[in-house]
Amino acid sequence: MPELRKDPIIGRWVIIATERAKRPSDFKIIQEKPKGGFCPFCVGNEDKTPHEVLAYRGDGSCANRPGWSLRVVPNKFPALMIEGGIQREGDGIYDKMNGVGAHEVIIESPDHSKTLADLTDQQIESVIWAYRDRIIDLTKDSRFRYIIIFKNQGEAAGASLEHSHSQLIALPIVPRYVSEEIAGALEYYNFKERCIFCDIVRQERTDGIRVVYENDFFVSLAPFAPKFPFETWILPKNHQSSFENGQMLEYQNLAKALRITLMKMNIALDRPPYNFIIHTSPVREKNIPHYHWHIEIMPTLTKVAGFEWGSGFYINPTPPEEAAEFLRKIEV
Amino acid sequence: MPELRKDPIIGRWVIIATERAKRPSDFKIIQEKPKGGFCPFCVGNEDKTPHEVLAYRGDGSCANRPGWSLRVVPNKFPALMIEGGIQREGDGIYDKMNGVGAHEVIIESPDHSKTLADLTDQQIESVIWAYRDRIIDLTKDSRFRYIIIFKNQGEAAGASLEHSHSQLIALPIVPRYVSEEIAGALEYYNFKERCIFCDIVRQERTDGIRVVYENDFFVSLAPFAPKFPFETWILPKNHQSSFENGQMLEYQNLAKALRITLMKMNIALDRPPYNFIIHTSPVREKNIPHYHWHIEIMPTLTKVAGFEWGSGFYINPTPPEEAAEFLRKIEV
Repeated sequence: MPELRKDPIIGRWVIIATERAKRPSDFKIIQEKPKGGFCPFCVGNEDKTPHEVLAYRGDGSCANRPGWSLRVVPNKFPALMIEGGIQREGDGIYDKMNGVGAHEVIIESPDHSKTLADLTDQQIESVIWAYRDRIIDLTKDSRFRYIIIFKNQGEAAGASLEHSHSQLIALPIVPRYVSEEIAGALEYYNFKERCIFCDIVRQERTDGIRVVYENDFFVSLAPFAPKFPFETWILPKNHQSSFENGQMLEYQNLAKALRITLMKMNIALDRPPYNFIIHTSPVREKNIPHYHWHIEIMPTLTKVAGFEWGSGFYINPTPPEEAAEFLRKIEV
Repeated sequence: MPELRKDPIIGRWVIIATERAKRPSDFKIIQEKPKGGFCPFCVGNEDKTPHEVLAYRGDGSCANRPGWSLRVVPNKFPALMIEGGIQREGDGIYDKMNGVGAHEVIIESPDHSKTLADLTDQQIESVIWAYRDRIIDLTKDSRFRYIIIFKNQGEAAGASLEHSHSQLIALPIVPRYVSEEIAGALEYYNFKERCIFCDIVRQERTDGIRVVYENDFFVSLAPFAPKFPFETWILPKNHQSSFENGQMLEYQNLAKALRITLMKMNIALDRPPYNFIIHTSPVREKNIPHYHWHIEIMPTLTKVAGFEWGSGFYINPTPPEEAAEFLRKIEV
């Protein structure tokens, strides 16, 4: 059983994934994987993944067979185990609990050759619906406090399989960076009685200098103090704390905002590897006035490493105003 | 002038290094640099670096000429500018200040072919003295609140030049991860009236399972909840909040602990790229009872990326007990 362990000094939880323990010799052989070859996410290989937990399929097609446009399956090498109790435990001054959680893969399309940005607005919308449907389902499990949705595109961004997919991790804790955002936003709310993200959206839309794209419901922008060059956030223009509580019209607009933002990055930066993460409210804190869900997109452009991880200190060589201007001007 | 900007939500400061602004096209050409070739850190090329701010030299040798065993020079492409006032300023809801600070390079030895771990204990001790001497000097500048000392070894860990060197950045703010550690340690101290790091050292030395190496003054160990495989910390066994206030005997023992720990990693992991960072107390908070300086060493073994940066959530495939056992058993 993997373990969740808490750093006693700063309180950060990490997963120690004992089930796939790596010995020193395992690290020596990490190298570029050959491209091509067998793909467990392609049509016809449905039996090479764990059984699907959700699929969008044509009429008459059977589960775990071809005929799908999108599939969600448990990760074959999960970082967490879906079965078992949490069992919080001490170990001297330390705290730990069982590594209980869900780890799922969203296979975004049957087409091996297309990245998310290459899909149609409708296909991207169905990816967004899959995110939402899985969150709604997993929220029923009282062990979970947070559901992270994220995507690694490209090997340099951590993707181990080429076929375009996103991931979901349901956790018995709230990840550190989200809880910091919520704490900061609550402090601001207590002081101003306004959502800080709403204030950011308002100031950015007035200034315009960091805006990348905008439609009726969403704005895509370079944040004022980005950690990485060309980091871009997509936020709903109106206050909403939970990603999964969107209206259909909103998801349609989100699909478009996401596709256009990714396409602009692809054109500007030559199809860069990237990560995105949905920051939404915790499972047990829905419809809160101080938090505002959003997507953070980070292209993998600079070789930053343990220094940033060890200090929390970032040097960004590209002013967000310049990045936004560049992306804004690109026609998609 | 580079800018320091504060994320309005979580309060993290980042450097926007406007002086070396990168346009999208600059990222396209980032690739492996050719090895060999001209090295500005080698003997005879002293005029290719900015003038030295410190050097340990043989009798009769002149500044910025050969004859040195260690040199400290300003970074030729500094992330911060040494001249100017801080000038805190608002911009609507945002906060910024001038990117004032020092950015120096410690050239650890004249020998291009040797990494830090290949040096003798005496040579490593002189690197430690250089760290200390520069901290003592820069502490006199009232604009600075924190001095970070760190090292990137190997290109995958962010080193842009092969010749072994460390870096120093003096900042008008305390980096986020250090201030979180100090806040967490203070909370523990207020509750227990004991230093949490002293308690960790005590528990780890009793348990033994995460200890890598120990001498009279230092212990090197795998932390209970490490972010990365084979992450290793070196801590003074006795309470001490500030790195630069060590005794000579302590620095001698530190040199040995650092060399042996790095050598064990080199043998176990085939000379991995790595980062290390010295976490010490802020410039204006010396001799505090709740904080305990230490070195965090992180080999670059796994391809983690924006996901971890965007969530603060880490999955570590190697239990620290296994990593420590492996390193402990290696004879150096």
